[in-house]
Amino acid sequence: MRARLLEATVELLVENGFSGTTTTLVSERAGVSRGAQLHHFPTKNDLVVAAVTHLTERRGEELEAAAAQLPAGKHRTRAVIQMLGDHFAGPVFTAALELWVAARTDKALLEAVAPLEQVVGRETHKMTVQLLGADESQPGVRELIQATLDLVRGLGLASTLGDDTRRRRRILDQWARTLDGALVPTSTTDETDGDHQ
Amino acid sequence: MRARLLEATVELLVENGFSGTTTTLVSERAGVSRGAQLHHFPTKNDLVVAAVTHLTERRGEELEAAAAQLPAGKHRTRAVIQMLGDHFAGPVFTAALELWVAARTDKALLEAVAPLEQVVGRETHKMTVQLLGADESQPGVRELIQATLDLVRGLGLASTLGDDTRRRRRILDQWARTLDGALVPTSTTDETDGDHQ
Repeated sequence: MRARLLEATVELLVENGFSGTTTTLVSERAGVSRGAQLHHFPTKNDLVVAAVTHLTERRGEELEAAAAQLPAGKHRTRAVIQMLGDHFAGPVFTAALELWVAARTDKALLEAVAPLEQVVGRETHKMTVQLLGADESQPGVRELIQATLDLVRGLGLASTLGDDTRRRRRILDQWARTLDGALVPTSTTDETDGDHQ
Repeated sequence: MRARLLEATVELLVENGFSGTTTTLVSERAGVSRGAQLHHFPTKNDLVVAAVTHLTERRGEELEAAAAQLPAGKHRTRAVIQMLGDHFAGPVFTAALELWVAARTDKALLEAVAPLEQVVGRETHKMTVQLLGADESQPGVRELIQATLDLVRGLGLASTLGDDTRRRRRILDQWARTLDGALVPTSTTDETDGDHQ
């Protein structure tokens, strides 16, 4: 029942935005009585803060599942970039965006969102480094990985306003080429092609 | 009086967010009577849609003023990137972000925001091309300029949640180096080998 309430909250954040997500709509959507809902989450804030955690886990699972499908070989960088671009243009990002913007002017929500956002940021960065086999001991590599994640975040924001897919694809194509030129694979000296951690 | 009302609306969007921006607060902030305000803008939607246009002009002026201060020479790319980064991390961007996110789930607002956003996007792109002296006839250059603007948009979004300035500076340093390596200045196109992907 708890999971159903949180899932309904995330759906409503995507459909109605933060201010249009009410506890009444959540209980209706989840098919849970008002009494039962109030028992789990007495206020909208309790519900939304719990949904932040739930959403964070969803984001991690979504990225891990997509990462497991990635091809090896010379098109890998492009595939990694596409995976990140898709993730940051999907509904899970949209729900997170609603929470970020609401948290900017809501102290209680910010205290819940900011630390989790830091964890997600660090984990997504670490995963991207591993997936690309990037060597962060090389100058500039850490910043290029961060730039990649800020780029897909910016593209995700644009896509919520109706940015077109073709534009995004061309930008990601070019960025993958630029990254391939800028990142030196850790394995070039010993010719191994496996893990790059 | 009209300008004062619009300026107060933008300030309140930054301080209180979209849902915390009420017509009552705007008239108080602007020092304008409720009657006079209602004469200019009968509803919150009228006020906010007019503020979108006002904000768009503010964004254009802010960028033009900053562009006029840019140095020439070899540090120009870094200075252009910093200028864009500062613009997308300032209050004018924050107010625009509030409107974008509100417009996502508010059809009337979206109809006002989306066309103006396209104009701003095109003009900012054109200005960036000119400031960098980039040659968009070269393959990949157009996409790298777009990626630059999506990057600063992503960094701007991160900064609203308390992203630190040092992180942003390092990313922009590296991005400027990457751009300098990838972009062929228009003044040297005669000598290019065309291999800048």
